[in-house]
Amino acid sequence: MNFPIDHIGIAVKDLELASLPYQSLGFAVVGLDEFIESQQVTVRTFQAADSLLELLCPTSSESPIAIFLAKRGQGMHHIAFGVQSLEAEIARLEETGAQFVSNVPRAGRAGTRVVFLKPSWGQGVLMELVEHQT
Amino acid sequence: MNFPIDHIGIAVKDLELASLPYQSLGFAVVGLDEFIESQQVTVRTFQAADSLLELLCPTSSESPIAIFLAKRGQGMHHIAFGVQSLEAEIARLEETGAQFVSNVPRAGRAGTRVVFLKPSWGQGVLMELVEHQT
Repeated sequence: MNFPIDHIGIAVKDLELASLPYQSLGFAVVGLDEFIESQQVTVRTFQAADSLLELLCPTSSESPIAIFLAKRGQGMHHIAFGVQSLEAEIARLEETGAQFVSNVPRAGRAGTRVVFLKPSWGQGVLMELVEHQT
Repeated sequence: MNFPIDHIGIAVKDLELASLPYQSLGFAVVGLDEFIESQQVTVRTFQAADSLLELLCPTSSESPIAIFLAKRGQGMHHIAFGVQSLEAEIARLEETGAQFVSNVPRAGRAGTRVVFLKPSWGQGVLMELVEHQT
């Protein structure tokens, strides 16, 4: 297995302010800002070659991103790896003892399906697996 | 500009323990662990398609990674973008008001030259620019 980095999720307080460094670096925005109901966030996405940079801005205080911001401030929130089959990878990883936040896929941005692994399993890193629509 | 994600730097306390999730995911190690004098860290690198995952383990209490670990615990430390010419990008970015930790390139792993932008400029994200040897 040699999964690509699908995206890096970055917790931000203000989409416009947080976009400035990426604009200065020269990254282009992908599509329109998108509201993700399950996470209570608005996502703005920049293209970095074959990977994406997702700025995640909470829309309610119950958003996991709002809780992260309150605890740790702005910064990198998770790393997402692209997989062909979410169900196959979940089954394979659970056999190695991997622990998921939930092993039931839910909706990510742009029609993707995603699951998150527990940060304790990831040695402090919140990892996501992403399956794109075929 | 559409820089690729060269690597994600991840602060870890123990290289063996921190390697476990990446091994379970199926990532292969690249080369040997490398000691980076300027950062006082040992780096273990995993290949994730065209990007790298660098596990950074401090070798002294003065290492910036030791300070990060004491303050925030294990987790993602920085994101590095690959550039063709470090000097050209430094000049271009400084014209936009970008602030560097130091705008004098120093040695990264595997013969690379690197600079870091200030996390305050990056809205909480420590960003690195990396130039590979040609």
